[in-house]
Amino acid sequence: MKIIKTKTYDEMSELAAVYLLSHMTKEGRVNVSITAGTTPVKMYEKLVPMVKGKQNYSNVHYYNFDEIPFQGKGKEGITITNLRKYYFTPAEIEEVQIHKLTPENYESHDQRLKKDGGLDVLVMGLGYDGHFCGNLPGKTAWEDQTVKTPFLDEELQKIADLEFGGDVSLVPSYAVTMGPRSVMNVKELIMIVNGKHKADILKQTVEGKVDSNIPSTILKLHPNLTIITDEDAASCLSEETLEKYR
Amino acid sequence: MKIIKTKTYDEMSELAAVYLLSHMTKEGRVNVSITAGTTPVKMYEKLVPMVKGKQNYSNVHYYNFDEIPFQGKGKEGITITNLRKYYFTPAEIEEVQIHKLTPENYESHDQRLKKDGGLDVLVMGLGYDGHFCGNLPGKTAWEDQTVKTPFLDEELQKIADLEFGGDVSLVPSYAVTMGPRSVMNVKELIMIVNGKHKADILKQTVEGKVDSNIPSTILKLHPNLTIITDEDAASCLSEETLEKYR
Amino acid sequence: MKIIKTKTYDEMSELAAVYLLSHMTKEGRVNVSITAGTTPVKMYEKLVPMVKGKQNYSNVHYYNFDEIPFQGKGKEGITITNLRKYYFTPAEIEEVQIHKLTPENYESHDQRLKKDGGLDVLVMGLGYDGHFCGNLPGKTAWEDQTVKTPFLDEELQKIADLEFGGDVSLVPSYAVTMGPRSVMNVKELIMIVNGKHKADILKQTVEGKVDSNIPSTILKLHPNLTIITDEDAASCLSEETLEKYR
Amino acid sequence: MKIIKTKTYDEMSELAAVYLLSHMTKEGRVNVSITAGTTPVKMYEKLVPMVKGKQNYSNVHYYNFDEIPFQGKGKEGITITNLRKYYFTPAEIEEVQIHKLTPENYESHDQRLKKDGGLDVLVMGLGYDGHFCGNLPGKTAWEDQTVKTPFLDEELQKIADLEFGGDVSLVPSYAVTMGPRSVMNVKELIMIVNGKHKADILKQTVEGKVDSNIPSTILKLHPNLTIITDEDAASCLSEETLEKYR
Repeated sequence: MKIIKTKTYDEMSELAAVYLLSHMTKEGRVNVSITAGTTPVKMYEKLVPMVKGKQNYSNVHYYNFDEIPFQGKGKEGITITNLRKYYFTPAEIEEVQIHKLTPENYESHDQRLKKDGGLDVLVMGLGYDGHFCGNLPGKTAWEDQTVKTPFLDEELQKIADLEFGGDVSLVPSYAVTMGPRSVMNVKELIMIVNGKHKADILKQTVEGKVDSNIPSTILKLHPNLTIITDEDAASCLSEETLEKYR
Repeated sequence: MKIIKTKTYDEMSELAAVYLLSHMTKEGRVNVSITAGTTPVKMYEKLVPMVKGKQNYSNVHYYNFDEIPFQGKGKEGITITNLRKYYFTPAEIEEVQIHKLTPENYESHDQRLKKDGGLDVLVMGLGYDGHFCGNLPGKTAWEDQTVKTPFLDEELQKIADLEFGGDVSLVPSYAVTMGPRSVMNVKELIMIVNGKHKADILKQTVEGKVDSNIPSTILKLHPNLTIITDEDAASCLSEETLEKYR
Repeated sequence: MKIIKTKTYDEMSELAAVYLLSHMTKEGRVNVSITAGTTPVKMYEKLVPMVKGKQNYSNVHYYNFDEIPFQGKGKEGITITNLRKYYFTPAEIEEVQIHKLTPENYESHDQRLKKDGGLDVLVMGLGYDGHFCGNLPGKTAWEDQTVKTPFLDEELQKIADLEFGGDVSLVPSYAVTMGPRSVMNVKELIMIVNGKHKADILKQTVEGKVDSNIPSTILKLHPNLTIITDEDAASCLSEETLEKYR
Repeated sequence: MKIIKTKTYDEMSELAAVYLLSHMTKEGRVNVSITAGTTPVKMYEKLVPMVKGKQNYSNVHYYNFDEIPFQGKGKEGITITNLRKYYFTPAEIEEVQIHKLTPENYESHDQRLKKDGGLDVLVMGLGYDGHFCGNLPGKTAWEDQTVKTPFLDEELQKIADLEFGGDVSLVPSYAVTMGPRSVMNVKELIMIVNGKHKADILKQTVEGKVDSNIPSTILKLHPNLTIITDEDAASCLSEETLEKYR
C-alpha cells in the first residue's frame, strides 16, 4: 500500500490522471477499469485533452466494474452512461475499446477478463460506508467474483428519489458488480479519495481491522494498492501511517 | 489464481524449483522467501545442484517468513536451522544473502523488506488445518503484518513431544511470523501441496469461503497466486475448478 | 520502434512529458536521463507543475548523458546548467536526486549506472546531422561507452561564437558523452523531434541504412525506441513507415 | 550485456535451459525463438523432460529465426526439421504452438511477430565466423529485417557435401533469416557458446569493434543480452571483461 497525499482535489485529480496514463502508455493491449460517480469528474477533465485524438492510446481497453441497469427501456445502465458523459464521449474513445459489464453478461465477466489478459489497473472511489465498486456492506462476500446484488426496498426508494423522480417502478431491482475477489485479482489498484466527509472512512480503511461490514478494509491486503488523497480526506490518518506508506 | 496439477510429488517439486528459479534468474536484486518443513524437501534437492557454485544467483536474497526460536541457548531457530540443512548449506549460499527473521527483529521486518525492495516471491506449504507460514487458525488476524504468536499449553507439549523429547522447558513459548497482510503484500505467491491428506484442505482453500478459521482461504484474493499440486492433493478439486484456473 | 505523430510542438511536448512521467510513477528507484537543448523546453514546461512538490517522485534519479565543461572556472557545464534552468530548479528537484556526468567522472559513468540499477529511460533530441547525445558524426564509434570527444578548431570557434561571445579561450576543448553502446544499453529510449528542418534527418534515421556518418541510424536497432514527432518533422516519412510503426 | 561463465558444456546447457524456462513460466502468451544446430542439443535434452506433458507451458509459442528450405520436395526445411528432432517431437509440443518461418512467409514475418506481441526471448548460437541466426558475414546489413539471402556457388557445394551427399541439385539456392534489426528488436537475447574453437570469435564479439564483417559484434549494443559460455569458449576473454559483465 502506498498513500500519496496531495493538497487539493485538483491535485488529486491530476495525479490520478497521470497514474492512469502511466498504465495506458505501454506497448500491447492494456485493460483498465474506471469508475463513475462524482470523485473522478475532474480526473476525467484532465484526461480528456490528453487522450482525445491520440493514436497511441488505441491499445487501451475499458471495462466498467459495476452497473445499475435501467429497467425495461433498452437503455444503457447508470454507470456506463456516466462514463460516456464524462470520459468516453469527450475523449472520443472508439466503441471497440469499450467492454460493457451488464446484467446479461456478468456471469462470464471474470472469464472474459481472463481471456483478454486480465485487468492491468482499476481506479475506484471510496464510499462513505466503505463500499468500493458495488460492494456495499453486507451485499457481497470476500470470495465473490462478479455477482448480481439485489436492492432492498428502502434502497430502491432512495435510488428512485435520487435518480427517477421518486418513481420506484423505473428503478432496477439489482446491480451487478465485480466482487472483492475479482477486484483484488486486478494487477494494480488505484483509489482516489477527497473531502473531509471521507476522512473517517479512509482512516478505517487504512488503519482499521479487516471487517466485512466495511468492505474497503480488505484492500490493504493487495500488493499494489495506491491511494491518492487530498489533505482533507487524509486529515484523520496518523503521521505514522503517512510516513510508513509514503 | 493458477492451479498447476502435476502427477507426482517429484514432478511437483521439479516444477516448484523451476518456478522459483524463474524468479531468481533476473537482473538486479531479487528477494525470495522460502519455506521449511517436509513438503519442500525434494524441491530443495532439485534446486541445490542448479544453484550451487553459480555466480549468476549472487543477486538473490533469502528471508525466512516465520521462526520458532529455541529457548535460552544462543542457537538459531527451528525454521532457519531447517533451511540451512536442506538448502543454504548444500547450495553454499553466502551468509550475506541470508536475512533472518528472529524474535529480536520481527517488529522491523516489514519495514526492512520495504527498504530492500519488497519480496518478489514467497514459496509456502499448506497446513492440514489451513495454516500458511505461522498463521495458525485463531492466532493471527487478516490485517496482521509480522507478529509474535504465543503458544497455548497444549501446543507447547506437542512441540516438546515432537522436537524436544517431551521436555517442555526447552520449548519456546511463542513463534514469530509474517501475518496474512505481510504475505498478501508479496508480489508473487507460490503454494506447493502434495498428498491425499491435503486434498480436503486444498479444496476448502480454493473453493471455499474466506474464513478466518481456515487462514489459507484468504490467499485466493491475491492477484498472483500459483498453486502447484500433485494428483493426490488435487483429487477433491472439481473439474470446473481445474479448468477455470489452469 | 514506435513512431507517434502528434500535430504540434505543444502536443509533442505534452505527450513526451506523459511518457516520461509514466516511467517515473513506478515503485522503487527509477533512473532517467534527460536532454538539454531547445527541443525539450516545452516538455519541461509541462513537467514542472506536475513534479514540483510531489512526494511521489522522490524515487526518481536524474543523470545527464553528455556535458560540455566550462574551462578553468569551477562552474558547472553547459548541459547541467541548462537542465537546472529549465527543469531541476523550477521543479525543485533535490540535489541528492541529481547525478552529474562530468569530465572528472566520465570513465566510471557506465559502472556507476550499472551499480545504480541501469537507466530505465533516456529522452533525447535529434541533431540535424543525425547526432544524438554527444555522438556527432565521426566522433564516436558504435561500441563506445561513455567517452571524451575532443573538438576540432572550427567547432571551437563555432561554440565560442554561440556561447562565449567569440572568445575561444573560454571554450572547453572537449565534451563527454554516453557513446552509442551506452545509449543502446538503456532499457527504453524516447526521441523527441519537431520542425520542418528535422524532417529529412528523421526520414534518414528511420528509413535509411545504418551508417556511422549518421549516428542516429543505429537507434532503430533498439527493442524499445519511441519516437514522438510533430507533423512537420514527420512530413517526409512514408505512409508505409507511419503505418508500420504506429 | 551479461556474461555467465559455467564450467562445462553440460553446465552451460543446464543454465540455458533454466534461463529459457524462466521466460516460459509466465502468465499469458510467451513467444520464443530457438536455435537449431549442435550447440543446443544438450540444452534440449535438459528441457524435454521439464516441458513434456506439462499443461503450464501451453502458453508458449515457438518461432524459428532462420530456415534453409529443401528444394522441390514438399518437405520442411533444415532448421524446423532439426528443431522437431531435438525438441518439438520429444517434448510433445502441439502444432498450434509452432510458427514456421519459411520462404513463403518470410516477408510478413516481422509483422506477424508484431501482431503476436513480439518475441520475448531468442536463444542463439555463435558461428565461428561471427554469424548469428542466418546473418553470415556480408549477407545481411544491420538494418535488415527478415530477408532472403542467396547462396554463392561455393556455399552450395559445401552444403551439398555436408547434407546432400554432394548433389548440388538438391541444395536450396537461398536461406531466409531474421536480419540484425529483427534480432536486435527481440526483448531478451540469450547466446550460448562452448568449446575452444569458439574462444577467439567470442572474444571478438564481446571485446571487439562493431564490424559488419563479424555480424555478432552488433549484439553487444542490445540492452538485454545474456551470454552463457563454458570455460573453454571464455578462455580468451580478459579478467576485466568477465568482472565487468558478470
